[in-house]
Amino acid sequence: MRKVQFFYDVVSPYSWLAFEVFSRFKTPWEIDFELCPFFLGGVMKETDNRAPSLLPARAPYMLKDLMRQSEYYQVPLQIPSDFLTNTITAMRLLTAVKENDPSKLESLSRALWQRHYGEGQEISSPESLLACAAKANILPNEAKNYLELTQDPAIKEKLKTTTAIAISKGAFGAPTFFIQTPDGEEMFFGSDRFHLVAAMLGKKWNGPKP
Amino acid sequence: MRKVQFFYDVVSPYSWLAFEVFSRFKTPWEIDFELCPFFLGGVMKETDNRAPSLLPARAPYMLKDLMRQSEYYQVPLQIPSDFLTNTITAMRLLTAVKENDPSKLESLSRALWQRHYGEGQEISSPESLLACAAKANILPNEAKNYLELTQDPAIKEKLKTTTAIAISKGAFGAPTFFIQTPDGEEMFFGSDRFHLVAAMLGKKWNGPKP
Repeated sequence: MRKVQFFYDVVSPYSWLAFEVFSRFKTPWEIDFELCPFFLGGVMKETDNRAPSLLPARAPYMLKDLMRQSEYYQVPLQIPSDFLTNTITAMRLLTAVKENDPSKLESLSRALWQRHYGEGQEISSPESLLACAAKANILPNEAKNYLELTQDPAIKEKLKTTTAIAISKGAFGAPTFFIQTPDGEEMFFGSDRFHLVAAMLGKKWNGPKP
Repeated sequence: MRKVQFFYDVVSPYSWLAFEVFSRFKTPWEIDFELCPFFLGGVMKETDNRAPSLLPARAPYMLKDLMRQSEYYQVPLQIPSDFLTNTITAMRLLTAVKENDPSKLESLSRALWQRHYGEGQEISSPESLLACAAKANILPNEAKNYLELTQDPAIKEKLKTTTAIAISKGAFGAPTFFIQTPDGEEMFFGSDRFHLVAAMLGKKWNGPKP
């Protein structure tokens, strides 16, 4: 089993694409896949980076590219009206779930992307976050507890630490993932290097479905 | 035959990768391939974009990615010591050659990339530009004439116009190319969307060699 650490924020649609690819391939590629929720806003600020969609000349192409990628990866995407919303509470919620019930982390991440980029709805309000938790089969009283934990200093600090670790390892955007190799780890950025990932793992890549 | 207009600057290593892919595939993909030399510095300034390698947190990954791409595309790349040099004279030279002897445009473009990114040498001096012209089988007296034309107001203006056209069509970086379709034209940016290009052309993509 090869370890892969996947740093992501649900504000990032390209992270959703890469997440779904890893979900499909982690078994055939024999990957020990660790989801690492971090706060992309913090990464961008710390590294002085900016989202490509914030450049007016680039935004129209990026939206077109996302629609092309949606079709290619077979992940249904639309652009929510509050595109590039602040996801700090959602990412704290994922952090709380990772700390307390990591088995639900994948399904809750997917539920958040599905609601935001699949259905175009906001994912900031407590109602939305609880609806996503329910979809991820988290019991209502547990979900309420995780939502309260988003205000807990230890969870806030944990999200900051994960973000700082990613930056210290070279992250400047999302998704960023690290593949363990015999010589250390190799960093990748984005959702469009899976042909290189497959080659590094000694596996085949014939498109986004195994 | 499907028309493809390819806007590029020899300062861009990702443009070299895409250029070589099109050179390999233009016959099997039945493409009428038009090389459109433009000035990337002008595009970046006009669109307020900046090269990813100018972001300190991003530069190390970009250099690593270029080396990975070099291996994948089988195009030998190294980073010249004057990386992101000013290529205005080289691009005017290509413009003069396109105007006067378009049959030499592809070989001169390749010779410039080969010298700069293949061998790590500068491509600003008259000596370097003439050496590239010789490699592209341009006769010495013609090469000298084209080099003089880099100071000709009409050639300067032509390069500006090509750059302005690309920007008006949506370009914000390089390479940018436009594929003619029954419904108009489709823009692509970069060297990593060939699986989508192939799908749009109704052709197959199994990696960077036909």
